[in-house]
Amino acid sequence: MDNEITESYITMPAGFKAAGVACGLKTDLGNSGPMDLLDLNMVESDVPATVAGVYTKNLIKGHSLQRTIRVIDAGAKIRALVVNSKNANACVGPKGYQDAVAIAEAAAKELGCSPDEVLTASTGTIGIRLDTSKVISAMPKLVSSLSTDAESAHMAEKAMMTTDTVPKEASAKLTLSGGKEITIAGMAKGSGMICPNLGTMIVVFTTDAAISKDLLQASLKRAVSHTFNRVSVDGDTSCCDMVVVMANGVSGASIAEDSDDLALFEEALTSLSLDLSRMIASDGEGASKFIEVICREAKTAEDAKLIVTAVAKSPLVKTAVFGEDANWGRIITAAGYSGADFDPEKVNIRLAGLLVCQNGQATDYSEDEVAELVKQHDIKIEIDLNQGAFEDRMFSCDFSYDYVKINGSYRT
Amino acid sequence: MDNEITESYITMPAGFKAAGVACGLKTDLGNSGPMDLLDLNMVESDVPATVAGVYTKNLIKGHSLQRTIRVIDAGAKIRALVVNSKNANACVGPKGYQDAVAIAEAAAKELGCSPDEVLTASTGTIGIRLDTSKVISAMPKLVSSLSTDAESAHMAEKAMMTTDTVPKEASAKLTLSGGKEITIAGMAKGSGMICPNLGTMIVVFTTDAAISKDLLQASLKRAVSHTFNRVSVDGDTSCCDMVVVMANGVSGASIAEDSDDLALFEEALTSLSLDLSRMIASDGEGASKFIEVICREAKTAEDAKLIVTAVAKSPLVKTAVFGEDANWGRIITAAGYSGADFDPEKVNIRLAGLLVCQNGQATDYSEDEVAELVKQHDIKIEIDLNQGAFEDRMFSCDFSYDYVKINGSYRT
Repeated sequence: MDNEITESYITMPAGFKAAGVACGLKTDLGNSGPMDLLDLNMVESDVPATVAGVYTKNLIKGHSLQRTIRVIDAGAKIRALVVNSKNANACVGPKGYQDAVAIAEAAAKELGCSPDEVLTASTGTIGIRLDTSKVISAMPKLVSSLSTDAESAHMAEKAMMTTDTVPKEASAKLTLSGGKEITIAGMAKGSGMICPNLGTMIVVFTTDAAISKDLLQASLKRAVSHTFNRVSVDGDTSCCDMVVVMANGVSGASIAEDSDDLALFEEALTSLSLDLSRMIASDGEGASKFIEVICREAKTAEDAKLIVTAVAKSPLVKTAVFGEDANWGRIITAAGYSGADFDPEKVNIRLAGLLVCQNGQATDYSEDEVAELVKQHDIKIEIDLNQGAFEDRMFSCDFSYDYVKINGSYRT
Repeated sequence: MDNEITESYITMPAGFKAAGVACGLKTDLGNSGPMDLLDLNMVESDVPATVAGVYTKNLIKGHSLQRTIRVIDAGAKIRALVVNSKNANACVGPKGYQDAVAIAEAAAKELGCSPDEVLTASTGTIGIRLDTSKVISAMPKLVSSLSTDAESAHMAEKAMMTTDTVPKEASAKLTLSGGKEITIAGMAKGSGMICPNLGTMIVVFTTDAAISKDLLQASLKRAVSHTFNRVSVDGDTSCCDMVVVMANGVSGASIAEDSDDLALFEEALTSLSLDLSRMIASDGEGASKFIEVICREAKTAEDAKLIVTAVAKSPLVKTAVFGEDANWGRIITAAGYSGADFDPEKVNIRLAGLLVCQNGQATDYSEDEVAELVKQHDIKIEIDLNQGAFEDRMFSCDFSYDYVKINGSYRT
């Protein structure tokens, strides 16, 4: 895996095009000028691509996503994914599903394919009907704008962003055992789904490898489990969250079952998922700091997960990190109410690398030293239980004034 | 039960005295002047009182609380409860328990009783050793200040407050079947334990009724279950949370098993717990609004609880209420990820009394009307699932700029 890549974009794998246009759903000009009006994108594959997906566990599912799940479950290969921002197309009744179908039909017409080869996704406000006429009117322009170039790909990313402040793109090139090269690229939108509970996350991966649907689905599921699922916190998911991967085989390189290539592919997909997860957590709504919570040596995997979840979600821990207060008491207290089973008197806590709590008690750390350390942007909280062999990790961000401002005024 | 009482204080039941003094733990003069320095209180009964308690479920328990649990479990009657604020006496190792013992011994010496007749409680910063010399030096003054008057009782309440902005006191007078009158009084400290996770809650009840320890414990447990436990959110509890009730029998009125008097007593204790719970939620750290979340017609009691908990804890719901944004999409989404089983298409949601969502979809409510309604201080969120017979309720408050400010700077 080549880590030298500096610029990443979704059309790096062969045979993919992308575009992002303004169809009129977004109307507020922000700091970035016309780029802030981009609200509709498409990622297209020249040839039908194998597809796999992982979706929100929320009982409430957006209509565009419900349609996508049906299409993927039906097993067909797909040609394109269309995403609109500003409106989630969720909780509007049976018309919402029909609206998603209408969008897919309009895209299919322009692409000259079947609607069953088009996935749909929406992110934005819940409970208000999507103005599909705007989306459908813009479809010819969207399709005619499709391009392999980096700029179009970046515009596609921008068009699905909502409260995101930075684009999130990642890629990897792999040389398989036969010497053939494949590329994987990913782009994500989503911010603050750990801070709050439901900033929608949409992640799209493309790859020019050839791989079966079953292998792709299994690899994606494992890649997501300790990356995106550790940002969005299992259960605490928006009604439109989804991660999809499209594999079009255009590189001519195939990935076989039980092969070293498959292991390499899954490792790269996991690594890209990790990178994008970190970007999402860092870009938490109004976040000023990135927080990584690690629990080690727990008795069970479930205990480790309960602890990292409780600590990463604790508003008191998050406000303390924002206030640059080395408040390990709030950390151990959150672990204490997490529901995990552990002996508090064996717990060590490191904050930003400094051992502040040993065997459940304060060490004689220097307040000045820790005060300096917690001024860093990336804050690591390490909780060593010293009573087992299980570990977990969660990505989070702090709670700031801006978090309250953004979420007190933005209609999700 | 007489609802005409206007002023309430902990020494209203016969045979109780109280005091609050400044022992030097608090050093910051706030807006209230010298009252802000009160940091040590005592509630004393002239005669040994039966006692019952309900405590935090947090694995991490403060040392003063650990001692209190042992004393209550040992079954002895007690003479007094001593509470200090500013320092939680938690996570400081074996010395913490010894410190709690030393405080009880100092109190017992002044009162002329056994240390086993003195309960201890602490609230404040975790992980820093309590300066017991200050507490012990102030003990003679504390005990000599004990009085039945309202002013002393209010000072006792003030001395256990931390980020509380208002005192929380409640009382009831009951006439039992034999014509005898008894009084119950309660005082509470705690703010924002729903907003965040661990603002410590300490609640003290006194009554001059005579009642057995078993009956008192059972009544308290039931009274707490849908009141304080619906503010502090089961599991999300501070390491020092406790509710205790002292019954000294000085009224001469006895409450017997299976009697109407017992039902009356428990009803009053529950009603006072409800009043104090509402006061605690309203006084959430930095809260500008009080939120009551009700879930009705759930398939199971657990489903109803999961939903009210998820909605009441959702930072996105809380910031929307702060921003006076009638955002029912965030409410139904939180219900969706709560883990409860329900059909979204049967859900009705009322926000501040207005039906905004029917059968899982937006009604044609007027945005202007709802915008006016959500300006109120008390916001009721009612979620009717229309699929069962179970109901639950949770008290919460909004997330404001001040919440972040208080918790970003206050070392719990």
